[in-house]
Formats: sequence, structure tokens, C-alpha cells
Amino acid sequence: MRLISYQSETGPRTAVAREDGYVDLHKADPLLPTQMKQLLPMLSMHREAIADAAKSGKLLDPAKLRLLPPVVEPQKILCIGLNYADHAAETGAIVGDEPVVFNKFPTCLRANEQPIELPSVSKEVDYEAELVVVIGRAGKNIPQSEAMNHVAGYAVGHDVSARDWQKGKPGKQWLLGKSFDSFAPLGPELVTADEIEDPHNLRIQCRVNGETMQDSSTKQLIFRIDYLVSYLSQVCTLMPGDLIYTGTPPGVGMARNPPVFLKPGDVVEVEIEKLGILSNPVIAGS
Amino acid sequence: MRLISYQSETGPRTAVAREDGYVDLHKADPLLPTQMKQLLPMLSMHREAIADAAKSGKLLDPAKLRLLPPVVEPQKILCIGLNYADHAAETGAIVGDEPVVFNKFPTCLRANEQPIELPSVSKEVDYEAELVVVIGRAGKNIPQSEAMNHVAGYAVGHDVSARDWQKGKPGKQWLLGKSFDSFAPLGPELVTADEIEDPHNLRIQCRVNGETMQDSSTKQLIFRIDYLVSYLSQVCTLMPGDLIYTGTPPGVGMARNPPVFLKPGDVVEVEIEKLGILSNPVIAGS
Repeated sequence: MRLISYQSETGPRTAVAREDGYVDLHKADPLLPTQMKQLLPMLSMHREAIADAAKSGKLLDPAKLRLLPPVVEPQKILCIGLNYADHAAETGAIVGDEPVVFNKFPTCLRANEQPIELPSVSKEVDYEAELVVVIGRAGKNIPQSEAMNHVAGYAVGHDVSARDWQKGKPGKQWLLGKSFDSFAPLGPELVTADEIEDPHNLRIQCRVNGETMQDSSTKQLIFRIDYLVSYLSQVCTLMPGDLIYTGTPPGVGMARNPPVFLKPGDVVEVEIEKLGILSNPVIAGS
Repeated sequence: MRLISYQSETGPRTAVAREDGYVDLHKADPLLPTQMKQLLPMLSMHREAIADAAKSGKLLDPAKLRLLPPVVEPQKILCIGLNYADHAAETGAIVGDEPVVFNKFPTCLRANEQPIELPSVSKEVDYEAELVVVIGRAGKNIPQSEAMNHVAGYAVGHDVSARDWQKGKPGKQWLLGKSFDSFAPLGPELVTADEIEDPHNLRIQCRVNGETMQDSSTKQLIFRIDYLVSYLSQVCTLMPGDLIYTGTPPGVGMARNPPVFLKPGDVVEVEIEKLGILSNPVIAGS
């Protein structure tokens, strides 16, 4: 299944894709929840009802569809740094025996086609294509062998990064450089885990104004999804809708010679095989 | 006003203190919202209604009152590191010209009297007494001169920290060491800003098993509240209910000789003048 969140007149709602468009799940079947975070832990239970809704429901008017990020207000957006062996190499970092973990805030999320706003206080905003894992079932201390049962699905993500803030501030904490408003585009769809036979074998690309800047495969992940879910759940209870941005492959702007940073008018596309294309224009922000 | 959140049979609710106990705001006046995050941006508008509710409403049964953290599910918990000149000195850190910023997750929050769970994977869990600022009105790029208008009030906070995870992991990101479940006790009450004439002149103490470990004043804050609100809002839109843990004074366990870390059976009390006492027992977690 391919799911979206969209903005209805009464607030965010969940819809399912079929060949010719999207169907609002709760309108098609009032037993299905309106919100993605409520739907995610019950995906398997509702599989048939969702399929029926997709078939029988009324199509949303595509001209009026206002897409939201697939998960609107996740409790947590966890992010993994330096998780592709070749990206770690290009940044000169040494890969440790545990992942580098940082995070973003829900105010960072943007849907497909929504603009990335360049903050006036940064001169070094960079792109990072990322596979995003969406948590379905809550869990704490999840064994690695059970971790994939907690994954509801995947989405295309973009970890926008203000390098000057990420690396140049006292204390060397990455948080602020990663957390400007609009710095976490996500979507357009959430693709449920059953559709992706092997999430560790997906081509992942980033294009800026049509030029390929990153082109790799999730094969290259150093710390894999089951490990990450288990590792993170040692620390905090993972909740339905929590997102894990799993890291980026080589080719980021700051590692180029000369460096390439985003500027108003750019369009960044992140494409992941079987998941789709996430496209966001870049504008001057405040 | 002194406000709390508590667990009712139907979920979290907001109540106001009077001398003899607490009154549920929405029960006393159905025009008042049930949730703290909804109440916070309208505090000034509802000031009279809240005062009336406190006077005329029915007291909640203290024997049945299940206290929650004053804000139950904040969108963001921002934290400032090394923000007391003398604490920065004891950790050997150099104070930069901008604050060190990290964060915690909503899964960290605990109410007064709820246990702090020591993770089995850490051997160095430390206490940190902190003044917490609660955002009332949303804002982005808030000028410092207007910042205090965005502050709804204050609460006593405890920034529990697993030092081995904070300092010993690849990438030196503090996030995980600060984000174990139960690592952000808060409360018992939220005291509205109008009750605190000068938030930069409050005695702040931490006691472990009755012994005073930290004893300072918010006079010592290097980066003050109006600056912090303005600074953080350059990066992300601050939302009603967002929390800012403003940093801790000297006396933390890791800076002692020999170091002092928390153990099961300990009780940690954080006291801030005019705000109250936050007391949490320490237990072995998983």
C-alpha cells in the first residue's frame, strides 16, 4: 500500500493510493482512523479494509489535493549520521562501532513540492538524500530479531543541513544546523513494508536542477535498519509515526571541490527505487 | 497562576491550583480548553475565567490525583548546555559566544514523584537542576525585545544525563545520553510568568538523598531567557508548550572527586524559589 496524509478542510487526513488517484480512508470506511499515527500500529489488522476502501472509495479531486508529509506530527525524528561507508570516507570521518545519532523537529517537515527555505543566517545549506523508516508499533528495548516487525514502511526523505551551523557552533552539536524549519522534506508517499522486499537494496539518488549529485544504493548502509531500530529503542521508546532518517550516500555539496550549496531557484529531487521522487524547490527564507 | 496537567479517566486534563487543592478548568468552565498546549497561547485572554474557575470549581480528590508533567506532549524540548558560568568552569568548557543547544524527547518527561529509571546500558547517570521555560505563543525570528511575550511560564526541571552516552559515543552528539526514557522530570506545577517578577533571580538547588549538591541562582545564567527564545526562534518555529531547559549550575556528579552517579534507591529533589520542589525516586530500569 501507498499512503499519504493530506490537508482536508477539517485538518490532516489519511488516504490510500490506487492507480488513478487517492481515496480518503475514513470517508470510505468510518472504522478506519483519520490520522496516520493512529493507522500505523494497526496496518496489518486493517489491510483488507484499506484495500476495500481503495477499491470502493471516492477519488479525491487531484486539483484540490494539498499533500502533507506522510506523518504530520511525529513525536521523534531520529537521524543517523555517516551511515554510508563511502559518504563517511568523503567527509573524512572514521566510522565508529555505533552510529552517530542526531535529530530534527516536526517543524522541519515539508511535503513533496513544498519549498525548502534557506535561512538568512546560513550560507552553507546542503542536500542529503535519505531513506526514511517509519515506525508502526511502539517498542522499547526491541531485540534486533524483532525490529522489522516495528517498521510500518518507508518514505523518501531529504536531510537538509546548514553546514556552518552543524559544524561551526560551540559544543559541536549538530541539532540546530539540522533543524531549521523546512529542513526535512518527506514523501510524497509512505510505502508499507510489505511492498519492499529488501530495503537494503534500493537505488538512491539526489539531483539538483536535474544534475545527479548522489547515486548509490541502500546496500551501502553501514548500520542497517533492524540494528538501528533495536539500537535506538535501548534509549527511548519508539512510537508509531516516529521517523528514522537513515543517513546519506556520497556526493553531498560540502565534500565537492569547490563546495556546492543550495541557492534560491534550485530544485532538489531525491529519488529512491520503489518509493518515488521527492521534489522540493529552494527559496530564500527569513 | 499555578497550573498542572493530570491524568483523568478520559486522558490528560488541565487544572489550576488554589490554596486547598486543584480545580479542573474545563469542568469548571466548559469554555476553557482541556489541554495545556491549547490553554497556553490564550492565558492572558482567559486570565479572569481561570481565576473564576479556581474560585467556584469543585476540588479534585487529592487521593485520586495522578499528576502528569505540566506539558504532556510538547513538540520540542530544547536544552541549553553549560549556561551557568561556574558550571562551565567546573566541566572545563570554554564558553562560546553562542549557547550549546541539544534536546530531549517527549518520552523523557516524568511528573513529580515518578521514578527516574537508570538504563542498564549506562553506568554514569547524573543529575542536573534546571529552570524550564514554557513557551506560550508560537513564533519564528522573535526579536529579543519581544521574547518574553512568548513565555507562558516556568517550571522546575531535571536534566538527567547518562555521561558515558553523552560524551563517549562516536560523533560526540549529546542527544542519546540526554534522551533515555524518564530523563526529563518536570513540575509539579507550571507557574505563569506574571507570578515571577524576575526569573533571573531565583535560587536553584539540587539535593540527592537530602544532601545539597547544587545551590546557585538563575542570576548566574550566561545566556538569558529573552536571548534564548530569540536565538532558538531563528532556527525553528517555537510552538505553544515547547520547553527550554535553560542549563544547570555547578555541583553535578561527574565534576566531583570522586564522581557521584545516581543509584537505585536515591531520591533527587530539585527546588527553585517560587516554583516549587520536583522530587523523583531513582530505580533500576531496563
